Amino acid sequence: MVKKINVGLIGYKFMGKAHSHAFKDMSMFFDASAQPVMKAICGRNEEAVKDAAERWGWESYETSWQRIIERDDIDLVDICTGNDSHRDIAIAAAQAGKDILLEKPMAPTLAEAREMLDAVEKAGVKHMINFNYRRCPAIQLAKRLIGEGFVGKIYHVRAVYLQSWIMDPDFPLVWRLKKESAGSGALGDIGAHIIDLARFLVGEFSEVNGFLTTFIKERPILIETTGDLSAKGSQEKGEVTVDDAALFLARFANGAVGTFEATRFANGRKNHEKIEINGSKGSIVFNFERMNELEVFSSEDPDYAQGFKTILVTEEVHPYIKAWWPPGHIIGYEHTFVNQVYELMEALANDRMPEPNFVDGVRCQEVLDAVERSSDTGTWIKI
Amino acid sequence: MVKKINVGLIGYKFMGKAHSHAFKDMSMFFDASAQPVMKAICGRNEEAVKDAAERWGWESYETSWQRIIERDDIDLVDICTGNDSHRDIAIAAAQAGKDILLEKPMAPTLAEAREMLDAVEKAGVKHMINFNYRRCPAIQLAKRLIGEGFVGKIYHVRAVYLQSWIMDPDFPLVWRLKKESAGSGALGDIGAHIIDLARFLVGEFSEVNGFLTTFIKERPILIETTGDLSAKGSQEKGEVTVDDAALFLARFANGAVGTFEATRFANGRKNHEKIEINGSKGSIVFNFERMNELEVFSSEDPDYAQGFKTILVTEEVHPYIKAWWPPGHIIGYEHTFVNQVYELMEALANDRMPEPNFVDGVRCQEVLDAVERSSDTGTWIKI
Amino acid sequence: MVKKINVGLIGYKFMGKAHSHAFKDMSMFFDASAQPVMKAICGRNEEAVKDAAERWGWESYETSWQRIIERDDIDLVDICTGNDSHRDIAIAAAQAGKDILLEKPMAPTLAEAREMLDAVEKAGVKHMINFNYRRCPAIQLAKRLIGEGFVGKIYHVRAVYLQSWIMDPDFPLVWRLKKESAGSGALGDIGAHIIDLARFLVGEFSEVNGFLTTFIKERPILIETTGDLSAKGSQEKGEVTVDDAALFLARFANGAVGTFEATRFANGRKNHEKIEINGSKGSIVFNFERMNELEVFSSEDPDYAQGFKTILVTEEVHPYIKAWWPPGHIIGYEHTFVNQVYELMEALANDRMPEPNFVDGVRCQEVLDAVERSSDTGTWIKI
Amino acid sequence: MVKKINVGLIGYKFMGKAHSHAFKDMSMFFDASAQPVMKAICGRNEEAVKDAAERWGWESYETSWQRIIERDDIDLVDICTGNDSHRDIAIAAAQAGKDILLEKPMAPTLAEAREMLDAVEKAGVKHMINFNYRRCPAIQLAKRLIGEGFVGKIYHVRAVYLQSWIMDPDFPLVWRLKKESAGSGALGDIGAHIIDLARFLVGEFSEVNGFLTTFIKERPILIETTGDLSAKGSQEKGEVTVDDAALFLARFANGAVGTFEATRFANGRKNHEKIEINGSKGSIVFNFERMNELEVFSSEDPDYAQGFKTILVTEEVHPYIKAWWPPGHIIGYEHTFVNQVYELMEALANDRMPEPNFVDGVRCQEVLDAVERSSDTGTWIKI
Repeated sequence: MVKKINVGLIGYKFMGKAHSHAFKDMSMFFDASAQPVMKAICGRNEEAVKDAAERWGWESYETSWQRIIERDDIDLVDICTGNDSHRDIAIAAAQAGKDILLEKPMAPTLAEAREMLDAVEKAGVKHMINFNYRRCPAIQLAKRLIGEGFVGKIYHVRAVYLQSWIMDPDFPLVWRLKKESAGSGALGDIGAHIIDLARFLVGEFSEVNGFLTTFIKERPILIETTGDLSAKGSQEKGEVTVDDAALFLARFANGAVGTFEATRFANGRKNHEKIEINGSKGSIVFNFERMNELEVFSSEDPDYAQGFKTILVTEEVHPYIKAWWPPGHIIGYEHTFVNQVYELMEALANDRMPEPNFVDGVRCQEVLDAVERSSDTGTWIKI
Repeated sequence: MVKKINVGLIGYKFMGKAHSHAFKDMSMFFDASAQPVMKAICGRNEEAVKDAAERWGWESYETSWQRIIERDDIDLVDICTGNDSHRDIAIAAAQAGKDILLEKPMAPTLAEAREMLDAVEKAGVKHMINFNYRRCPAIQLAKRLIGEGFVGKIYHVRAVYLQSWIMDPDFPLVWRLKKESAGSGALGDIGAHIIDLARFLVGEFSEVNGFLTTFIKERPILIETTGDLSAKGSQEKGEVTVDDAALFLARFANGAVGTFEATRFANGRKNHEKIEINGSKGSIVFNFERMNELEVFSSEDPDYAQGFKTILVTEEVHPYIKAWWPPGHIIGYEHTFVNQVYELMEALANDRMPEPNFVDGVRCQEVLDAVERSSDTGTWIKI
Repeated sequence: MVKKINVGLIGYKFMGKAHSHAFKDMSMFFDASAQPVMKAICGRNEEAVKDAAERWGWESYETSWQRIIERDDIDLVDICTGNDSHRDIAIAAAQAGKDILLEKPMAPTLAEAREMLDAVEKAGVKHMINFNYRRCPAIQLAKRLIGEGFVGKIYHVRAVYLQSWIMDPDFPLVWRLKKESAGSGALGDIGAHIIDLARFLVGEFSEVNGFLTTFIKERPILIETTGDLSAKGSQEKGEVTVDDAALFLARFANGAVGTFEATRFANGRKNHEKIEINGSKGSIVFNFERMNELEVFSSEDPDYAQGFKTILVTEEVHPYIKAWWPPGHIIGYEHTFVNQVYELMEALANDRMPEPNFVDGVRCQEVLDAVERSSDTGTWIKI
Repeated sequence: MVKKINVGLIGYKFMGKAHSHAFKDMSMFFDASAQPVMKAICGRNEEAVKDAAERWGWESYETSWQRIIERDDIDLVDICTGNDSHRDIAIAAAQAGKDILLEKPMAPTLAEAREMLDAVEKAGVKHMINFNYRRCPAIQLAKRLIGEGFVGKIYHVRAVYLQSWIMDPDFPLVWRLKKESAGSGALGDIGAHIIDLARFLVGEFSEVNGFLTTFIKERPILIETTGDLSAKGSQEKGEVTVDDAALFLARFANGAVGTFEATRFANGRKNHEKIEINGSKGSIVFNFERMNELEVFSSEDPDYAQGFKTILVTEEVHPYIKAWWPPGHIIGYEHTFVNQVYELMEALANDRMPEPNFVDGVRCQEVLDAVERSSDTGTWIKI
């Protein structure tokens, strides 16, 4: 008998949509041990959240997040709000004994993230943080290959997350560009993803040295957001208080070294999250813009036949693919969320702690924090 | 007020799943003028179809296709069965005044396809054939560019559809490998797609010259299918009665010339549907395995800065993308079905004939038929 | 003691330059068993040929090809003239007991090619035809891999040679566009190369079915050529008497099937000579525009790690590379000529018949001839 | 009347061969205003240098570099020796009034580099440093595009030079792995190239922050070198005294920021010198392993047709290409040296200072020096 997990989702923008879709579609494709039930979605604008509930298939809606937490018929609270409310909601949910799925980055500050981890550990609830890129089949394949010794001892990692959606100086001051709401800019928003991937694939960071920079220091005051990443601004300008780009060097506990770069000013790069790992026996390259592919090199191939091989990660034997389509029929961005929900349901059904969870969230936040401090001091900061 | 369209789907295998998903997800992403209601799904195996109905969200199920057609609460019949039953179901549906969505290829023979077209025209119902690759945003962009004169006068088209899933001689005699059920092999299954794309982007064929070939002439008798493209066979063998590969040359009404190849014996190619068009002003290249990308060349760029440009077709300004995700967040195979259902709903809501429809199906079938005849005679066959 | 081979080169245009360079550079890089001595170059325009002799390092020059053949101090006659003079020069050279290096295609007609083969066989001289693309390290590696069974039984070959240098309708009627001087157009000029590569890698053709087409039927009369592939034309127009494009299907003696296309009307493609071979165990892809790379696929790799591998063919263990540069330091077009001269010198020094030779030239010409006849009849022609 | 420049080349290994070839071939392809005459080559091993002289076409040879400088018939001294002798030879050559071509990196230390610059400026001779990658046609095209405003204000540069030839721990202690002979490891050998490219394309560095690392700290003592990048070692081990990898962050005078990485431990990367530049209007990407290509992005293209365009930099209108082959006939590594010699001859014939010259060499050395110091201090170092 498949267990039912009643879900209450807080937030109905970009991430709310992606999570809603994942809850809706998961059971259609996966034979999971538990099944999410879309109980309630929550947002402050009643008209908008009601519309979202209908369109996305939620049974009910609420206009205050506290109501979600109070409701007895909710097992799992999914937090897709702005970073600045993550702590309050997560702690309240934990105290109410709810399991939690949380969008990254964990919180605007390391201190808040630690408070949140304390709360869930104290409450003994299950917790997951949605570093969804771990759920690309190609990343799972990379993890498997590295685990099997395919790359050998890791020497190098170079990771970039390149976007360009705010390069226009007239793009307005949305919440992602203000420290009070976003915590940081490119660093926390997209840098967090490559830090998590590096932790997942390479291991723990030991120290970092880097800097944050803001190319456009003033922007039009926001009038309204018009899409996931689009907005209208006024004539008046306000200060950008987060980084446009973050660059840092890293040393890892296992001796590997790396370069990391997160920027919203790489013209032509849309969602170019690329990581390359070089080890004593081989190398691995992943680029999200071609997320169905993994490039691998093995120096154990015959000397006359070595090269980077592009694996189209769409075979039945590849992670998650059996649930999807035949070979060569590629999947997309949203599937990472569906795969994540599947993992979450498996964990909840089997009383296991899901991964990645708040421990990973805090570790990632420690690196973000160290990068910010190293940007202030111009020196290496130990994690 | 959004119109409701009650759907009855016949078939619950690979295509049944893809269509079910499309009906389920469309309204979540698109503001369409009509909304599909998932009334009933139909299949001969009661247990299996009941399970599909529950998992995929259909309100009811039937075990005979005639029941779907008899039901008053069904507006649209969606036919996802094997080719050999397309004619009977489609004609019955038309006579019952149902609108029709039909999986490609239209029918095992041109004669049957023409009967079907007659029936829908006589009945005055709406009809659509699911050449879903037309609904890749990149293909729509190609269509737009060609329409705007970007490639100029077309000289060349070269199209291949390369797969490899039956290369193992022990892969058994599934229905796709038998003429009585499938009509033809690679030709009708995947060749039909590149013929349709060429018609959509280049124009009508005027004559063809080609041949069919079967590399593995005997295969194990089928015991059971185990997945979309996987199966178990017995010790005993039977004759393969369809083509493993089809190759042909073509001339088009507008003077363009082309090479076409559909094969299931291209080792390493999974779903490699690639089309290149060269014209007097530019060129266009599409490959389904990287379906979010379109390569374009313009000889009107400055002479020192010409080259093939890879457009990542994931911008809000690109076809269908506004309904999906931000730039660089790619979509996958199944989205072509969702986009198709959106187009179908728009057409039904506005009393327009959808495209592509049975006319396109017949035209495609004429080319398939001509290729088969040219394979027999070794000469050019006019369409 | 290294043998000296005295060379007389006839022709001083594009190919004359490429051959001169090859003779000049070969001994600098290779430890060959024989060394070419650049005795004389020949051309009808005294001023031009004198200039070429000085610039390219020839000891002397002649203005009539008969003089080259008469000279006792010439061992090897290298024929880089227009196709229409190949037969007369080659036969005269053979009768004079000279060894011969001949630019492809062999002759304007099959009959002439056969006469030439008769002449060299009767005279007992060494003969080589310069299908230089065989001398790409990547092609030699492909040959090795195929020989070792890497691709298994070959099912498919698809080869294109795409250029675009005459797409402008105002490009004038150079010798390459007139049947009397060139024999054929794209077919003989570039189609010959892919036919030779297919013969080298796949085996002998058994029958073909194709057609030639001329998109621009009239062009300005030539005033003067201004570069290898550039020229000035007059106001007056004349008829183009060769093909702009040639497309054909092929069956091979070993059961493989193929598509072939040679065109000068593929906008954006500059020297895009691409061949893909699919067999029961693997596949191989080569594209001259990235001539230092070979893509290979093996279905014998672990099922979760299959994919096309890009070998950068620049390792010491790769063919010819030890003579050139360290890994990753790529070579270019002209190196194929240098490698060819090395092979020629090895053959002459060791009294072996070089390869490819006039037998290969005739075989290639048989295919060219069959394609032309099939274009006339619209049917399959056996080779 | 073309001027003759008498050349004396010191060194006959990898670089000696590349330079010899460039002097030999330049006049065959270019109409230069001056022509190099290959007067003498110099090396300590008489047999080897004599052999090199014969094979590469030098008129004479010497076994002491002082002899080259003493000879009245030498105009230009070309220094291709190990870094540790650059200073002495260059200063002596300058004092003797010879013009100088010098292989990079300039010297083991910044102090020596400055002495050398002083010497040539005092002597008033011409001087050039062989940052040959500037002479890739694609890099020259990038320079032109940047100069014309194609990328706008530059925000980002990310440059890597990745090799893998010493990853085997048994690879012996060649001169490039010892500080006394090489000055530094990956930093000076290949890092110098990307520093120079960044200076050429982006502008002057203002500060850097990075570190050097040595993964394999002991290696077999060298017995003999067997190729450009291959060697035999003994059982005994010695200390590696240079870096295996150098990683650094950079700020530029114009406000751009960058990441730089030079390593010999990137498995699978052979000569992967890649630089990406992102600016307010566009981006540019170059990778030496595909040196005939330049990728460019312009945000001024129509919004529905933006993307990275791969320019095959082989058109007559592209830098240097008119001297070489028709479109699509690619050139290779060695051509950068030939193009460089052409530029040198043009400068000498027209009494202009060539570029890049010792000023560029010193600037590059300043950055190398700052990276080393920042590695020691763990802080930012101003240039």
